[in-house]
Amino acid sequence: MDQAVSQTRSRLHDDIVVFDGLIVSDFGPDVFADMRRGGITAANCTCCVWENFAETMRNIARWKKWFRAHGDKIMQVYRRTDISRAKAEGRTGIVLGWQNTTAIEDRLDYLELFHELGVRIIQLTYNTQNLVGSGCYESRDGGLSDFGRDVLAEMNRLGILCDLSHVGPKTSEDAILASRQRVAYSHCLPSGLKAHPRNKSDEQLRFIAEHDGFVGVTMFPPFLAKGASATVDDYVEAIEYVIDVVGEDSVGVGTDFTQGYDKPFFDWITHDKGDGRKLTDFGAVINPEGLRRIGDFPNLTAAMERRGWTAARIEKVMGGNWLQLLTDVWGA
Amino acid sequence: MDQAVSQTRSRLHDDIVVFDGLIVSDFGPDVFADMRRGGITAANCTCCVWENFAETMRNIARWKKWFRAHGDKIMQVYRRTDISRAKAEGRTGIVLGWQNTTAIEDRLDYLELFHELGVRIIQLTYNTQNLVGSGCYESRDGGLSDFGRDVLAEMNRLGILCDLSHVGPKTSEDAILASRQRVAYSHCLPSGLKAHPRNKSDEQLRFIAEHDGFVGVTMFPPFLAKGASATVDDYVEAIEYVIDVVGEDSVGVGTDFTQGYDKPFFDWITHDKGDGRKLTDFGAVINPEGLRRIGDFPNLTAAMERRGWTAARIEKVMGGNWLQLLTDVWGA
Repeated sequence: MDQAVSQTRSRLHDDIVVFDGLIVSDFGPDVFADMRRGGITAANCTCCVWENFAETMRNIARWKKWFRAHGDKIMQVYRRTDISRAKAEGRTGIVLGWQNTTAIEDRLDYLELFHELGVRIIQLTYNTQNLVGSGCYESRDGGLSDFGRDVLAEMNRLGILCDLSHVGPKTSEDAILASRQRVAYSHCLPSGLKAHPRNKSDEQLRFIAEHDGFVGVTMFPPFLAKGASATVDDYVEAIEYVIDVVGEDSVGVGTDFTQGYDKPFFDWITHDKGDGRKLTDFGAVINPEGLRRIGDFPNLTAAMERRGWTAARIEKVMGGNWLQLLTDVWGA
Repeated sequence: MDQAVSQTRSRLHDDIVVFDGLIVSDFGPDVFADMRRGGITAANCTCCVWENFAETMRNIARWKKWFRAHGDKIMQVYRRTDISRAKAEGRTGIVLGWQNTTAIEDRLDYLELFHELGVRIIQLTYNTQNLVGSGCYESRDGGLSDFGRDVLAEMNRLGILCDLSHVGPKTSEDAILASRQRVAYSHCLPSGLKAHPRNKSDEQLRFIAEHDGFVGVTMFPPFLAKGASATVDDYVEAIEYVIDVVGEDSVGVGTDFTQGYDKPFFDWITHDKGDGRKLTDFGAVINPEGLRRIGDFPNLTAAMERRGWTAARIEKVMGGNWLQLLTDVWGA
């Protein structure tokens, strides 16, 4: 089927802005080339999961080198207009993002330095409790800490999007209520389709949407109803489920592509702090048929067309809604 | 005499760009207010002496807070035009600078991050040997290390001015020859007026000038012939000595104001790595009469006028030459 699907590349895909709300892949020339094959205009690319301050700085320094070495394919995104420029120039815009706040350690004032270096999306916690709040695999969630409130306020001031995908339910609720700016689940799936600690209930989805928030939908197979046997059409069905709950103006794509990684990486992300207690077991991570690789991205647009979505809806969900969210949070 | 001198504030001082090539003071509201009193357009302000990576990052984060809290008095300088803006807006432009390369530890790629955060002047070594080369108080100077050559090349690429004031003689010579861009002694005195490990011989001054380099002249009393009993006129005489050696287009001011600091600070800077072996003893640091404080800066211009310098020479030495150097190294 992969081949059949890949022949249905639509003209629409090449015309629209395509934004992926979460990619955590083994970045480098191969992934960058595949981003161009996939026609990705811009993406939120993870540069902190469990890393501390210095380690995250090194990750960012590595990105700066890539921006120089692969400037024909990628460019850094600091503001909304950089995404337009990436589209116009046929490059993929890289938004530096975090899935954890370990990078600031216990220093609120580091946030401003990272913001200046281009970090624009930050998830408050990753799976477990940290100084800011609790995670989705933590047995108890005491909510946003006082330090966490300071972190969120500083993110609001700087214009850094708050991501709650892996955050615990109480901490998420607190953050949604405390944030002066729109917040997001950048990459999640509805528990209405599969019960899982990482998936969000209809109630949670409605709650964030009612507070002007945003939902990026992931295709990460362990959280999909059909798991490793899902197809790109199942992914579109999951997106549609979320649209039916929150409306088509607040929904986007956040694939969670982990391209190029294998067991050591998955061991690292599924253990607390990278090498602590085991939190979950994904089994084999096989992306949905038709969307196995980043380069298959045009198949996602094609699957939406196949499902009978209007061009207007596809344009919004594939990137337009993300652009609006980022403009709202980052400013012009 | 202080009072008498302070009455001679010249109109010229308020018209010209005043650049101080080295201030390492107890920064904060008092110093910023004094910078405005002194009519300082911009200054190279030290944010790393012995500090490591994280400590320097914290120092920079503190500066970012000051730029917000005291934006009526100071602003950060990233490029040449920021200095013009500071002049036009009646604020003092702050160039973040280092007196050591300890902040990058053993990571060349940290330089680019610091550059993006605004570090624009870096001294290769501070008094003793480090990973880059040797210092002026080190018993032997084996010259610029291979890592040091990489550091200098990366500074050249980024457009960071290389400062050699506290650097050993052989390392300085190597750097002057290796640099693709103009380099500087940002704050030094001629050993022709007083023999001292920190002072530069006529030969050294000529060597840097012949290689298109620059000499900022300090008034730090332990290095002045008259020491703690020197006056602002002795300082102007020392500047004139340097002009006579290298010409008036390559000379500027680099006071080395240590305002607000006392014994603990001087202990810290005069011991290797802050708390190692003692390198030198400054005795009491009493700035030249007439230029005791940053706010007295107009007296320096007045003393130059008193000595019969032309307005054109004063304008160059007080800031014009620095502006040309920074434009050459930083680009537009």
